[in-house]
Amino acid sequence: MPHDLPLVSTAHAGAHLTVEQDHGAVIRRSILPGGVRVLTQHIPGMRSATMGAWVGIGSRDEAPEHAGSTHFLEHLLFKGTPTRTALDIAEAFDQVGGESNAATAKEYTCYYARVIDTDLRMAVSTILDMVTSAKLDQADFDMERGVILEELAMSDDDPGDVAHERFSEAIHGGHPLGRPIGGTPEIIRAVTREAVCEHYERHYVPAGLVITAAGGIDHDELCAWVLEALDTGGWALDPNAVPLPRRDVTAPVKAMLTPRLILPRDIEQTHILIGSEGLRTADPRRSEMGVLSTILGAGMSSRLFQEIREKRGLAYTVYSFSSPHAETGQFGMYAGCSPSKADEVAALLNAELERMAEGITEGELARAKGQISGSTVLRLEDSYSRMSRLGKAELMFGELYSIGEALDNVRAVTADQVTALSADLANRARVEVRVGPSAA
Amino acid sequence: MPHDLPLVSTAHAGAHLTVEQDHGAVIRRSILPGGVRVLTQHIPGMRSATMGAWVGIGSRDEAPEHAGSTHFLEHLLFKGTPTRTALDIAEAFDQVGGESNAATAKEYTCYYARVIDTDLRMAVSTILDMVTSAKLDQADFDMERGVILEELAMSDDDPGDVAHERFSEAIHGGHPLGRPIGGTPEIIRAVTREAVCEHYERHYVPAGLVITAAGGIDHDELCAWVLEALDTGGWALDPNAVPLPRRDVTAPVKAMLTPRLILPRDIEQTHILIGSEGLRTADPRRSEMGVLSTILGAGMSSRLFQEIREKRGLAYTVYSFSSPHAETGQFGMYAGCSPSKADEVAALLNAELERMAEGITEGELARAKGQISGSTVLRLEDSYSRMSRLGKAELMFGELYSIGEALDNVRAVTADQVTALSADLANRARVEVRVGPSAA
Repeated sequence: MPHDLPLVSTAHAGAHLTVEQDHGAVIRRSILPGGVRVLTQHIPGMRSATMGAWVGIGSRDEAPEHAGSTHFLEHLLFKGTPTRTALDIAEAFDQVGGESNAATAKEYTCYYARVIDTDLRMAVSTILDMVTSAKLDQADFDMERGVILEELAMSDDDPGDVAHERFSEAIHGGHPLGRPIGGTPEIIRAVTREAVCEHYERHYVPAGLVITAAGGIDHDELCAWVLEALDTGGWALDPNAVPLPRRDVTAPVKAMLTPRLILPRDIEQTHILIGSEGLRTADPRRSEMGVLSTILGAGMSSRLFQEIREKRGLAYTVYSFSSPHAETGQFGMYAGCSPSKADEVAALLNAELERMAEGITEGELARAKGQISGSTVLRLEDSYSRMSRLGKAELMFGELYSIGEALDNVRAVTADQVTALSADLANRARVEVRVGPSAA
Repeated sequence: MPHDLPLVSTAHAGAHLTVEQDHGAVIRRSILPGGVRVLTQHIPGMRSATMGAWVGIGSRDEAPEHAGSTHFLEHLLFKGTPTRTALDIAEAFDQVGGESNAATAKEYTCYYARVIDTDLRMAVSTILDMVTSAKLDQADFDMERGVILEELAMSDDDPGDVAHERFSEAIHGGHPLGRPIGGTPEIIRAVTREAVCEHYERHYVPAGLVITAAGGIDHDELCAWVLEALDTGGWALDPNAVPLPRRDVTAPVKAMLTPRLILPRDIEQTHILIGSEGLRTADPRRSEMGVLSTILGAGMSSRLFQEIREKRGLAYTVYSFSSPHAETGQFGMYAGCSPSKADEVAALLNAELERMAEGITEGELARAKGQISGSTVLRLEDSYSRMSRLGKAELMFGELYSIGEALDNVRAVTADQVTALSADLANRARVEVRVGPSAA
């Protein structure tokens, strides 16, 4: 059994934790004054370093009339501080060849940068200046509204994106998880600077901040740079503060399914999504879900790819996915196909899910475990991926698994467990979304 | 001045070349019997290995009535050999968590795999079985036609993709470089198996094959595995054969510009591309072009991003690009914007190109050099990127620059050189493509 590290969100400042040897890289976690959490993974020999500043707040935390304000705020943080203009921020990363960006998700927001290790102090200082001291000027706010409307227009012109957003709506209905992350053009045109500022002031606080980093870094040095940057940003750090607790993962969510959602579009392909409520983040069956998704819909040897693309030539893109949230989740299958074949492809997607519930072979089980292990090891060479894993472990899972432990969990999965989970999913009420020229 | 390694495409089998120390990784190049070229870069401490099998033939080499047959063939290679079914090939890579795929470009085709180093022999054996012994069954051919038609439909539903394809057409007119790589649905519905087979038999030959690999690999071991796999595949390897020469890079190309190309689409955004003929691959000004593109349109601090997105909020995505081909090339600027702002954005794109010709600051020059150097060093951690660099060096450039030499070339660029190149580009006849709801 994996060694589940204790949740440490109640630990005071000064608490430290070290996970020994995780594929040659030690994970360390410290609580700084203010309840600021820092998690790092030093990777010997790596020249790059990726750091992220996380807040465990996303689009699901918005009031309906402010939908999209989390994403709006993410954009505004790049518009400058009292000591750095937007151009200063852009030049700081560009001139060292670094990548900096941010991601707003339903349950978190993350600002990150990947740089050569010798530029990491600059990255920490710049990103934490944005986090602590964003100006949020009215003029910048008005200008960025136009950029966000273009981003929404671009997404609306991508029928695959549209299908996925509608799928969330079909699964979660009026629940905030069912809304698009970026909001709608109507709300973005109406949202006020005050709503965005209120969001910033309430949620960008020391006890909510998580800093993660991986690659060519030194944990103690990074902690010192974080404290220095937060001090420069004027954040008062209470030495007795504790980190904010994780989001409640046990709250029941009432399903509000829309069984069939059709969006007509005058395009070449029909985009089909079929699925149901999935597993929540902390579901103990998440390793089984990994194996199930791999056999059903990940890679060229998966059942969906073989049945729909290889044997019948009906689609170019076909896969399954699992998107866990704190207390609920989504499980789905996607295919893009000719409108004239949409009914046939939808029937095949349903049939393959049901066939999973009839059992899997030992060969499929062994190959899926090999696929998950191999791809995990290959991902270790990417400092962004390790940085991101630490942030999600802290904010979503509340457990700091080592990679070795995660792989042990996958190796322990049995065929019967996968079949049982498949049967569970196949028995759940299903929804179907179509975006394309077919009228029904 | 950089040390230009001699072109070795006339060297006999048995020729070997070593480039010492390229940021801690030695590049080696060998000519095997048959004229098969092998180029590798061992990267100390790296667990992944990426290998690619290249043929210097792409969509530009097709007769008009067979347009898309190179890409069709690329798909068919994954459909099986006498000793491996399509499922065997898919499972071989999936079960070790590897990635395998292929890319058809205008001037080359590449089949590649990224795996853990201990799985590299399997990757070489599987990919070279596909290259030497593809079955190209009629039944597979008929089935894959449907998959390719879905791929083309998907691309047609992406207005950005459509705009880029139309831009090639506007620049290169009836020249094969002006055609879409995948062909058109009409030709794909009509193309025969014989045309694809003829392409395979003519171009997939020892003297045309280039194998490149980077990461956790050993050059001599890889050469042995390549010979073993080609022998298994039944390829006769003439010990005196020389590699095929590179594509002629000096042939003049007559410009066939379409100044304005408008494609109406009922979508939210208008996609604008403005540009001209660009530099050919071997143009001695390619380092200047790298600096020019960086200042004009790469990253958040670039002039296009600042003027169009940051200062005016008119676009979400805006950038410039340079796509070199053997004897000609494309240079362009892209923005996606609201249809009502399309004229304003087009005017800004034109104005920024012309403003480049008025000169750049020393600060811009220094930052651009830092950006190119830093991002080059960051890319070194990616074995795919190094594998790909070797293939392009052999087939496109005909020179094996070390990364250190490439960076020296960039450091030597002067502001006057960038201004002169900008003036050259700004004086070239320009084309404009729009895809979107605006009628003109």
